[in-house]
Amino acid sequence: MLGDGNGCVPCVPWAPAYYSVRMNNHTSTPVGVLGASGYVGQELLRLLARHPGASVAFATAETAAGEWVEGHQLIKADDAPFASAEVVFSALPHGVSARYVHEARAAGKRAVDLSSDFRLSPEAVYGLTEFTRPQLADADLVANPGCYPTAALLALIPLAQRGLIDPSREVIIDAASGVTGAGRNPKRELLFGEVSEDFRAYAIGNTHRHLAELKQSLAREGGFTGDLVFTPHLLPVKRGILETIHVPLTRVLDQATAEGLYQAAYNGEPCVQVLRGALPSLKDVVYRNRVALGVVPVADVRRPRLTVIAAIDNLVKGAAGQAVQNMNVMLGLAETAGLPC
Amino acid sequence: MLGDGNGCVPCVPWAPAYYSVRMNNHTSTPVGVLGASGYVGQELLRLLARHPGASVAFATAETAAGEWVEGHQLIKADDAPFASAEVVFSALPHGVSARYVHEARAAGKRAVDLSSDFRLSPEAVYGLTEFTRPQLADADLVANPGCYPTAALLALIPLAQRGLIDPSREVIIDAASGVTGAGRNPKRELLFGEVSEDFRAYAIGNTHRHLAELKQSLAREGGFTGDLVFTPHLLPVKRGILETIHVPLTRVLDQATAEGLYQAAYNGEPCVQVLRGALPSLKDVVYRNRVALGVVPVADVRRPRLTVIAAIDNLVKGAAGQAVQNMNVMLGLAETAGLPC
Amino acid sequence: MLGDGNGCVPCVPWAPAYYSVRMNNHTSTPVGVLGASGYVGQELLRLLARHPGASVAFATAETAAGEWVEGHQLIKADDAPFASAEVVFSALPHGVSARYVHEARAAGKRAVDLSSDFRLSPEAVYGLTEFTRPQLADADLVANPGCYPTAALLALIPLAQRGLIDPSREVIIDAASGVTGAGRNPKRELLFGEVSEDFRAYAIGNTHRHLAELKQSLAREGGFTGDLVFTPHLLPVKRGILETIHVPLTRVLDQATAEGLYQAAYNGEPCVQVLRGALPSLKDVVYRNRVALGVVPVADVRRPRLTVIAAIDNLVKGAAGQAVQNMNVMLGLAETAGLPC
Amino acid sequence: MLGDGNGCVPCVPWAPAYYSVRMNNHTSTPVGVLGASGYVGQELLRLLARHPGASVAFATAETAAGEWVEGHQLIKADDAPFASAEVVFSALPHGVSARYVHEARAAGKRAVDLSSDFRLSPEAVYGLTEFTRPQLADADLVANPGCYPTAALLALIPLAQRGLIDPSREVIIDAASGVTGAGRNPKRELLFGEVSEDFRAYAIGNTHRHLAELKQSLAREGGFTGDLVFTPHLLPVKRGILETIHVPLTRVLDQATAEGLYQAAYNGEPCVQVLRGALPSLKDVVYRNRVALGVVPVADVRRPRLTVIAAIDNLVKGAAGQAVQNMNVMLGLAETAGLPC
Repeated sequence: MLGDGNGCVPCVPWAPAYYSVRMNNHTSTPVGVLGASGYVGQELLRLLARHPGASVAFATAETAAGEWVEGHQLIKADDAPFASAEVVFSALPHGVSARYVHEARAAGKRAVDLSSDFRLSPEAVYGLTEFTRPQLADADLVANPGCYPTAALLALIPLAQRGLIDPSREVIIDAASGVTGAGRNPKRELLFGEVSEDFRAYAIGNTHRHLAELKQSLAREGGFTGDLVFTPHLLPVKRGILETIHVPLTRVLDQATAEGLYQAAYNGEPCVQVLRGALPSLKDVVYRNRVALGVVPVADVRRPRLTVIAAIDNLVKGAAGQAVQNMNVMLGLAETAGLPC
Repeated sequence: MLGDGNGCVPCVPWAPAYYSVRMNNHTSTPVGVLGASGYVGQELLRLLARHPGASVAFATAETAAGEWVEGHQLIKADDAPFASAEVVFSALPHGVSARYVHEARAAGKRAVDLSSDFRLSPEAVYGLTEFTRPQLADADLVANPGCYPTAALLALIPLAQRGLIDPSREVIIDAASGVTGAGRNPKRELLFGEVSEDFRAYAIGNTHRHLAELKQSLAREGGFTGDLVFTPHLLPVKRGILETIHVPLTRVLDQATAEGLYQAAYNGEPCVQVLRGALPSLKDVVYRNRVALGVVPVADVRRPRLTVIAAIDNLVKGAAGQAVQNMNVMLGLAETAGLPC
Repeated sequence: MLGDGNGCVPCVPWAPAYYSVRMNNHTSTPVGVLGASGYVGQELLRLLARHPGASVAFATAETAAGEWVEGHQLIKADDAPFASAEVVFSALPHGVSARYVHEARAAGKRAVDLSSDFRLSPEAVYGLTEFTRPQLADADLVANPGCYPTAALLALIPLAQRGLIDPSREVIIDAASGVTGAGRNPKRELLFGEVSEDFRAYAIGNTHRHLAELKQSLAREGGFTGDLVFTPHLLPVKRGILETIHVPLTRVLDQATAEGLYQAAYNGEPCVQVLRGALPSLKDVVYRNRVALGVVPVADVRRPRLTVIAAIDNLVKGAAGQAVQNMNVMLGLAETAGLPC
Repeated sequence: MLGDGNGCVPCVPWAPAYYSVRMNNHTSTPVGVLGASGYVGQELLRLLARHPGASVAFATAETAAGEWVEGHQLIKADDAPFASAEVVFSALPHGVSARYVHEARAAGKRAVDLSSDFRLSPEAVYGLTEFTRPQLADADLVANPGCYPTAALLALIPLAQRGLIDPSREVIIDAASGVTGAGRNPKRELLFGEVSEDFRAYAIGNTHRHLAELKQSLAREGGFTGDLVFTPHLLPVKRGILETIHVPLTRVLDQATAEGLYQAAYNGEPCVQVLRGALPSLKDVVYRNRVALGVVPVADVRRPRLTVIAAIDNLVKGAAGQAVQNMNVMLGLAETAGLPC
């Protein structure tokens, strides 16, 4: 499980050898990974390879079938031996994923789907771990949240639950993502020669697919049904999402009160970091299964407003890390097992 | 004027030799540059070195005094021979600039100040060229706009002038700038090791100095006195500003109407590019004295909204280029003389 | 000629409006550009759009046919109206280019080929302008040098011509290029997510295609037939090549002597910058049609050695700029017409 | 030990909670870190915070004294409680380090110095772990190798030991490093605005401080006393060193033989990766305590030559990681304890 398949001297990245004997003493749950050659699938394999309570039974890819990633030789999804796994992750593309997830379910396996195929479906539990933990424990099918909604929801639900968001004014969410969020298939617009030294908005005017998921979950968990304006941007960085969220408030909140509110809301949460007197940046969160939150009241306006900054690693808390966090809950393991929070 | 002072074989960057004979036939206005070693001062020297109607009489710097930049040996500001110039540019830091600009004025010289020292002062004409052209022709002292306000004002004034911005809802401006906007003095937070692969907001909660200037000019030119929320961000790029501006409208505008409105407002303007069916990115504007504007109506909200994207090069249209544009108007030259629009 | 075809207010990037009336007084040579949608082809269109003595008659692309670039609507290469041009540039891919260049020649047109198809062929004059100027004046077919050989040859020929390179020891050339050198076709290995924060060698062990061209020209112009070791690397930058060239010498050269030798060799050359007491970096040359050269003798070794650093912009002096420089010579124009040296 | 001192909800980055109980069952060696605010010092704290057999007793900084890094409040070096630690690391600047290391030694503590102060001194064991392991076990003072020499020595010693390097020809080492190698003190030349999109050589002509250390160790471990030419370059990346090493051979080696030789030399070494039929890039090694090596014989030359590519993370295997590896050997722990190889 721990070789890296490219002929090198065996070594165990990020998994201290000191622990490796003990690791074998534990019972490991076998898991399968569909779509392991993209950025999300690779991150998933990287995390699972160091997980103390799970071991990868199979990993699939299409054009990359036959290649080795993190010690696993990739096979075609159509050859996936579902029987060998207890939990199946799918990092397949939207539209393709549902079919294979249904196959896994038909084979009696529990599944965590990282595509958007089940996020609006009543079939699945929406895996925003911090808010749907009770349902996750028994879930057979989990729809892992999109990267943008993960950050936005963790920023907004605490305010929404307390009735602090003024529904008569719009919530404005400006989000910027590193390029791994756009996938690993070669496209001209994602070439280094195009992206470096550039910055641009896309899917503006509320046309991004993630908006529906965001609205659904903000209504369900926070009871907020007012208007949202969501505008994503493409950053010249590899990974990380930063969202600047403009919240119209129903009453004035000073900084200490706002920070205290978030501290209380996330008290004991291992994967949420509420900053005091500071603002998150991508550096604080990349390679971690963590959202970092910072808040500042807005001066020089007539009605109360709060600006909330939320940062995550789009591949970890925004995808593979949260998927593992959800698996941990499903299996009754420590929630942060195998996760760098 | 055209050597580059560092011992190389003489050559004429960006000024085709083919033209250089003719260039000498023209009368050149001598100009001085205070603060020529920072990013803005250097850009100014670069533009002026290729300007057909101006020639640099002197250029100053403090710690870099004695060095050569674009063919000019830098002298101390205290030694500036104001008498030798007709127009004096100041790219000195805020707080320091005013004193030297007053000296230049006392020597009877016209001045363009690129610091913020005169932007809120009735002494100076605010040099947002497209809107203050008539006053610029006779101005003796011009306050060159800040980089962020330049983009925001060119995006908002056309809507404000037509009464299209709903004053009962806030205008939200999320702006992202390349690091040259933060100056060239060594600071840890601007090191490559800190900025690369990072992204963060700063001066949030309406605490940025540029806000006052922005509000003043939006009121004066557009008659809008509603609330603004301005949030700058630091991008891992060298140059360029992109602003995503969320405008609450008094009535619905479809995309064609909105674009047509901007096209009409900026008809014949050589330094404004209104995109149709496309959005600007930094690539479109860097190294140019141009603002690029794109608009999209927002779907899925109850009240009318428009998102406007504005992009400029912070060092050109946001600073040195606009300063030269203003000088051209002051001297009665072609407005784009020496400028890559 | 000067609109930009995307619906914006007409403007004239990098071509001061002040000159534009005069420009029309000159007789312009019509030229065609084959392969105008790649990075080299685009750079060529950008330079030609501002050229005082040439105007673009047609520009071709395959998948991008129909699109507008720098004011020209791209047509298919098979539809190229060769009769409308006097000089035809080809920036088509290696292997494809020769056929179209032969067509242009068959139509009686002079051609500058930027692919590698004619670089080893006696049919064409090798367009290393500084060394083949006399043959270029009458050439009907010019093979524009590769980007890597351009820098290496301009660095090595002066030493070779003076018999200063020890043929009994190998010349080692370590070259690093920005990603635009690898073209604009989407490939996974060129994605921002792969290239950013990475650096790697490729085609090592003397397997790069450019080696043959380099050896041929170094023998022909400099009489050097000793061994070369050429190793290219991929840099996480958009444009620019830096070559670190390790030269075994036949006798000791101190720094002043070595610099003086290069200064003498390139005396009066407008596109070669020999630094004194300084080393070139990419910043010195990007967006310019210039090679910058710096030299340092090596201490602490038993036999004489010189390290030469050469920097160019791979798209300008390494491709499109040198092609225009060659055209200028072919047409008897000022050699730097339209070129930012 | 595991909080992060900035007021956030406690979490355990990169140290799976699943293991944390067991961790406390082990006896931990208390260690001190001098100079913990630079890039190397921070990396050291990060690694030690997750180390199963060591715990940080104190960490020092000068201007940053009082700040928290990885759960430790920094104190002044002059206040360092040497008595509380068993091993003291120094990441202080060259020239400053020796004095504090002597203090630690005077207090009876073992020390690992990461500056260059002891690398040429007989007082210390040179900590190139793979080659000086036996001496390290008993060492009281270890001089941790420089980043550049680490990669070069691991690439060259196996060839030197077998008499394969031709001493009559020079070994050429072209090295490129990310900017964290230049430290965290603010300098203009290290600003993002200067480094991004740039690349340059420095300290050329064999003037870099690391050369002496490299020659000393290559002679001592490999018996090679021929000439070296070492040329470092500054890369626009945060971390990572890639060295392209041109080796004149005493006899022909084909690729399989060369690879086999390295595989044999490093058989069982957990922190050395010998690639087969592939070349290392920075991606393969960043954030890991690993050198990756790839070799290719050079074609088209008259005498046998091998090109060796070596890649390391300058902050890990090139500094903090190797220091921890050395400590592990000194303390008799598993050599890769706490290390991501």
